[in-house]
Amino acid sequence: MDVAKKVLLIVLDGAADRPTVRGKTPLVIADTPFLDRLAAEGILGIMDVIAPGTPPGSDTAHLSLLGYPPEDVYTGRGPFEAAGVGIDVRQGDIAFRGNFATVKNNTVIDRRAGRISNTHQLAESIREHVHLDCDFVFQESVGHRAALVLRGEGLSPMVTPTDPQRSAAIMTSKPSANSAAARKTAKIVNEFTRQVHSVLKDHPVNKDRVRKGTLPANTVLLRGAGAVPHLVSFEERTGLKAAVIGATALVIGIGKLVGMQYYPTKGATGHVDSNIEGKVDNVNEAMKQHEFVLLNIKGADEAGHDGDFRTKSQFLSRVDSALSKLHVDESLLVTVAADHSTPVSLREHSGDPVPFLMWGKGVRTDDTEVFNEFSAAQGGMHRVRGLDMTPILTDLLGKRKKYGA
Amino acid sequence: MDVAKKVLLIVLDGAADRPTVRGKTPLVIADTPFLDRLAAEGILGIMDVIAPGTPPGSDTAHLSLLGYPPEDVYTGRGPFEAAGVGIDVRQGDIAFRGNFATVKNNTVIDRRAGRISNTHQLAESIREHVHLDCDFVFQESVGHRAALVLRGEGLSPMVTPTDPQRSAAIMTSKPSANSAAARKTAKIVNEFTRQVHSVLKDHPVNKDRVRKGTLPANTVLLRGAGAVPHLVSFEERTGLKAAVIGATALVIGIGKLVGMQYYPTKGATGHVDSNIEGKVDNVNEAMKQHEFVLLNIKGADEAGHDGDFRTKSQFLSRVDSALSKLHVDESLLVTVAADHSTPVSLREHSGDPVPFLMWGKGVRTDDTEVFNEFSAAQGGMHRVRGLDMTPILTDLLGKRKKYGA
Repeated sequence: MDVAKKVLLIVLDGAADRPTVRGKTPLVIADTPFLDRLAAEGILGIMDVIAPGTPPGSDTAHLSLLGYPPEDVYTGRGPFEAAGVGIDVRQGDIAFRGNFATVKNNTVIDRRAGRISNTHQLAESIREHVHLDCDFVFQESVGHRAALVLRGEGLSPMVTPTDPQRSAAIMTSKPSANSAAARKTAKIVNEFTRQVHSVLKDHPVNKDRVRKGTLPANTVLLRGAGAVPHLVSFEERTGLKAAVIGATALVIGIGKLVGMQYYPTKGATGHVDSNIEGKVDNVNEAMKQHEFVLLNIKGADEAGHDGDFRTKSQFLSRVDSALSKLHVDESLLVTVAADHSTPVSLREHSGDPVPFLMWGKGVRTDDTEVFNEFSAAQGGMHRVRGLDMTPILTDLLGKRKKYGA
Repeated sequence: MDVAKKVLLIVLDGAADRPTVRGKTPLVIADTPFLDRLAAEGILGIMDVIAPGTPPGSDTAHLSLLGYPPEDVYTGRGPFEAAGVGIDVRQGDIAFRGNFATVKNNTVIDRRAGRISNTHQLAESIREHVHLDCDFVFQESVGHRAALVLRGEGLSPMVTPTDPQRSAAIMTSKPSANSAAARKTAKIVNEFTRQVHSVLKDHPVNKDRVRKGTLPANTVLLRGAGAVPHLVSFEERTGLKAAVIGATALVIGIGKLVGMQYYPTKGATGHVDSNIEGKVDNVNEAMKQHEFVLLNIKGADEAGHDGDFRTKSQFLSRVDSALSKLHVDESLLVTVAADHSTPVSLREHSGDPVPFLMWGKGVRTDDTEVFNEFSAAQGGMHRVRGLDMTPILTDLLGKRKKYGA
């Protein structure tokens, strides 16, 4: 078989956009000679990562791109975040994303507790002094972030968050399904909130913060409840030994949950200041050991959420320059895609299709010469769905099973 | 209604490919002035015969092209092969493809029994002397080929093959579902294997073959177990009286099972040496009596499986020359498609989309001027699925029922 042997899937998180400045997008304005070369030598297309007009979350988008139907495996973001921060989650666990935050008279003053940077001692106290009506794992992460996992019989992800997502009263978790499990879980979540506040409100770390004029981290807000799904490993499904390189707990967690090896990158922040060059070095390393590498680069999404056209465009130029150091050879099939559009005009994810390109042996080329939303719409791949991506890539490697005879 | 009256669907079996020789495919290199004229005057597109990235079998592909969802009607290739070799199969029958083969000490020495050409006497003996725990029909076909149909209550297609598909021990059929029917069927299959060997091992035909230094046909290997589905006839579904012209038992069988009239062609072999000219004459004849003709031309698939770029390309040139003798007039809608790609670089079916063209009255033309994988990706039909083909064609004939009012 004369086929490519390995796949590199590069996800430019939130990179796609709508025409904004003189009808152009950040990707059109960005200087991307490397991506343009791949486009010229490969094939382009557009993709509905979930479905036309449906804005994907980064979680459901990555699951789709890896071939896991979100409607089968996704109940909330918590499980992937929890796996990403290093909790060894198990099927059936109920997991939440958490924020250390500041409350006063039950009202959230700051969802990030004055951008607190080290919550280790606070988390230790929570682990030591909080006692719930089920087992739990609480793990602090970067900055104000954390994750909570509830483990036990008769639990459910069908509960509302305690995080009001803005300056407002901290919310009481309520069952969102009429089941004993949902009622029990909401009760446990509210008990968690009560005990955490009691543990943190006079904690020495917070007393010290108040003395120094910073906000105390006196609560943990929870959101993104989800049940940890059963996920057949990516290698079992595709025959490809896989690795993940990313900065955010979400992407790392999804990779870990489908059995990918995680390659940490120093200085990878998930922001526009991220060490993309380090990630690219890591990809070159990972490709020696693995047949499939998922590389997520996050900054463009952040700039989209900030509504910052210029930063988004400049970041994409920097990404292209870093990607040009990839060891791209005959054995490699390269795919570049966005997981969703984050238009600067919207400051949120949109359901616009995203551009993608495929480059490498066996790929039918087309006449497109640059990589952006407009050229992709002229591409020879036309329009596919996110769930089509893994079958197409593995088929190009000659690894798909024939349906019929 | 000013519409075309008839449809000719030409399936160039396995004709589609990947860029191989200087980025070109066999179809690009082939000299195809007739197909190029149809392309220039008609419209092109690409088609996922099953789904993006899924390599179709010829069986599931043809079912899709004719509008029968494989997931509803397909359990294995046996029923179509059995119908194709002339067995009058009935709904619920369990059918297998068979090979006369040579075994020694239970190991398959030659899956084609020294390319045996006449198995009639051997088959007669099997029909006479084998007795199973259900009714059965055994029918020899061209060369080493045969088909077996089991008929009776409580049978299942969920059994493993006895054909190891290579030089290895002949396999014991096992139930592949936990059901009494599967267990019973596997038992019958193994009993068939035992009795066939007992009937054939000292058969006069085989004694004669051994004397002459050729391999004895002392077993029949079975594979492709499937249950004969209920198929609403093509004419009932579409209103079109239909005929099939092909060389392989599979395509003929599918045609017969959906009620098409089969027009045999002398010298049609399914190989690159096939009498394509005779098939084209047959099409011209069949179009006088029928409103839908399915013409399958197989050789390109064979060349793809052989990894032979030059032969594949030359064969397609010869196909074009033969097709130029078609009586193509205003009453006729012509569609040309591949049922799947068989890239010479892969030597197997792939899940790449296939090119197709439509020509005739009512077809919206596009700017494409030649028929190949690359121009098709620029075509005005964009990207459709195999199951879309029959609705599109019958709609162009004004025969589709309105959905709604």
